[in-house]
Amino acid sequence: MATELGSDRERPVIGFLTDFGLDGAAAICRGVMLSIARDAQIIDISHTVAKFAIRDGAYLLATAVPWLPVGVHVAVVDPGVGTDRRPIALLTQRGDVLIGPDNGLLLPAAHRLGGVTSARVIENRSWLLSAPSSTFHGRDVFAPAAAHLATGAPFDDVGPEVEPATLVELAVAMTTVSDGHIATEVAYVDSFGNLRLAGGAAELAAALGAVEPGTRLEVTLQESTAEEHIIVRWSRTFGETPAGALLAYEDSSGALAIAESSGSAARRLGVGSGVRIGIRRA
Amino acid sequence: MATELGSDRERPVIGFLTDFGLDGAAAICRGVMLSIARDAQIIDISHTVAKFAIRDGAYLLATAVPWLPVGVHVAVVDPGVGTDRRPIALLTQRGDVLIGPDNGLLLPAAHRLGGVTSARVIENRSWLLSAPSSTFHGRDVFAPAAAHLATGAPFDDVGPEVEPATLVELAVAMTTVSDGHIATEVAYVDSFGNLRLAGGAAELAAALGAVEPGTRLEVTLQESTAEEHIIVRWSRTFGETPAGALLAYEDSSGALAIAESSGSAARRLGVGSGVRIGIRRA
Amino acid sequence: MATELGSDRERPVIGFLTDFGLDGAAAICRGVMLSIARDAQIIDISHTVAKFAIRDGAYLLATAVPWLPVGVHVAVVDPGVGTDRRPIALLTQRGDVLIGPDNGLLLPAAHRLGGVTSARVIENRSWLLSAPSSTFHGRDVFAPAAAHLATGAPFDDVGPEVEPATLVELAVAMTTVSDGHIATEVAYVDSFGNLRLAGGAAELAAALGAVEPGTRLEVTLQESTAEEHIIVRWSRTFGETPAGALLAYEDSSGALAIAESSGSAARRLGVGSGVRIGIRRA
Repeated sequence: MATELGSDRERPVIGFLTDFGLDGAAAICRGVMLSIARDAQIIDISHTVAKFAIRDGAYLLATAVPWLPVGVHVAVVDPGVGTDRRPIALLTQRGDVLIGPDNGLLLPAAHRLGGVTSARVIENRSWLLSAPSSTFHGRDVFAPAAAHLATGAPFDDVGPEVEPATLVELAVAMTTVSDGHIATEVAYVDSFGNLRLAGGAAELAAALGAVEPGTRLEVTLQESTAEEHIIVRWSRTFGETPAGALLAYEDSSGALAIAESSGSAARRLGVGSGVRIGIRRA
Repeated sequence: MATELGSDRERPVIGFLTDFGLDGAAAICRGVMLSIARDAQIIDISHTVAKFAIRDGAYLLATAVPWLPVGVHVAVVDPGVGTDRRPIALLTQRGDVLIGPDNGLLLPAAHRLGGVTSARVIENRSWLLSAPSSTFHGRDVFAPAAAHLATGAPFDDVGPEVEPATLVELAVAMTTVSDGHIATEVAYVDSFGNLRLAGGAAELAAALGAVEPGTRLEVTLQESTAEEHIIVRWSRTFGETPAGALLAYEDSSGALAIAESSGSAARRLGVGSGVRIGIRRA
Repeated sequence: MATELGSDRERPVIGFLTDFGLDGAAAICRGVMLSIARDAQIIDISHTVAKFAIRDGAYLLATAVPWLPVGVHVAVVDPGVGTDRRPIALLTQRGDVLIGPDNGLLLPAAHRLGGVTSARVIENRSWLLSAPSSTFHGRDVFAPAAAHLATGAPFDDVGPEVEPATLVELAVAMTTVSDGHIATEVAYVDSFGNLRLAGGAAELAAALGAVEPGTRLEVTLQESTAEEHIIVRWSRTFGETPAGALLAYEDSSGALAIAESSGSAARRLGVGSGVRIGIRRA
């Protein structure tokens, strides 16, 4: 099976996400990619993922790639660089290729793109930079592989196939729905300080029935430096809520979220990702 | 009236400014824009505008767009997203289109581009992403509208015309010039900590007459955690002033500014945007 | 001597590094460059170099440019803007042109590109923006010069030649190798908090002989808010070291580095760039 990512268009897209920060490592990878795929349109997704935070990186990659053109998307949050964790490429149902370490970072994005249709270990020695380092596979392995695929190299050239079932998966945040109550967790805290939850609006409706804007909800926070039980109002959007008030809403990807209008819920409530959250009618 | 932004060039320019931060929301919008306008040259102006700081966003947009090629420029600092604030597109004298919420964010930039020649509400349903969210109009409304215009869609297709006089304007910082004194305010604190003032060098000259480099000026700060009256020297540039000394100068856009040489005036003086500033000869 | 940077390719590359931060000044320069060189592929190297930190900027530029395609690379960390420090362009052996202030920022990168083959002061008045400011040469001098060269203007058009020996050089960090001991210094602290040293792995081997993974090394820190003598293990990569343990390794550019696995050595040890470091076997 071969992709034609680079063959039928002038400017192949490469999405790019790392925890490299803003001081040059991402630019080195961009340089490597553009040296190989001169006309690539690189879309930087984020390079300020919290260091080593595979789960945050997976969340951001999965929320972003469905909105990018079909392309090759490279993600590097890779505390295991240089060990025997595998460098992988995943061909997805939508036609994208995801590239990065086999540590769970890529699979949520693959699911959003229709699932993995083929997985390969990156072993094509003619693609790798000569004498790859043991600390910077972004530059030496992932960037060149992405660029070669972006220029139209067939997916089969990546390296040997691996069984998708053997790919490392992150533990999934459990969301449980019972009569009148939903228990879920904070999947990500965005740059506004909004708490993006693992559970979706459909699950909330399954637990509580239809929830009208303005409905008061009691939110229980498993760990918080502030309050343990808070009251929020179900809202359609921020601007309908007075500044400083807490709201719960369906976010732009269909998930539940808790925010402070014109403020930061994460700072106000003292919670971060992974915290368990319960919601019932107040 | 129709723009020809996308019709006569290979790579239409889209300027892009938000308060979305660096964690993926801006990338989602870039993905949407590039899915529609595949060859767009997106110029990221800033995505680290202070959250909800319409005034800061307006300042940065207005100072940047005159230096960008003629294009479509999208700005999203939008605490009122999902309410009845209007999504608008402004055609300017220079030929650019400005796109964003009708909350005052766009007008200072429009003035720098020669003024608004036509304004329309974004209502073209064939442009909007299906089922627009009520929290992410950057993705669902503004990005697609910008991309369609960048590909050459006529400005008339945006939606119904609105009377420019009905557009929301920010309160303008008052600068008053009297004999020997100018009263103005901090319009923006830049990333160096330099205080960019609303008043211009021409107004200073009107108040104080010609000011030679080295002239001592007394600056009065309305609110400061440090000193209330400070002495600065009028300088042509930073490097002529000893490190750690305060200076006043004409910034690169003709406005007054106060800086600490090789330091941060904002941190030293404990002031931010909106603070009233008085200047007289010392 | 003329470069053909822009003549034989569709999208000339412009690398771009500054200490301007993320709030619009870099975008203004991008706008100026793209107004002149419409098809330029700008590769942002970093804009978050510590303010006025010429040494940090020089380090990042030198580590990045070898990985970028041959092009014009502009760097602006310029506390002397507006004084008589010279604006320069350096043609390098590899064929790149480096553009920026003559304050030591460019030379380490030039050395990595094979050395300077010709140096010129930027004085072409037809390139400069009219009425250049005295505080923003990034916009008025360096960006337009880079863009004109990127479109194929001959290097001779830059301005008068200068003797490379007269260019300002940064003091080089001294690394001394003696029997059983290497003395060097922290050249840069990267965004992970890893201490990148001036000395290279070859110098370590010259001092200590071949060092096997797992070897215990005693590291002496000249100034530290924490420990003065620490023990680290020589490692091939982070992932082989338990989280929280300190390691020394050969970084991806062949230099020595000290890291905390899954942590920040700089924060843990309380040291920054310029600190002297001694290494011997423990």
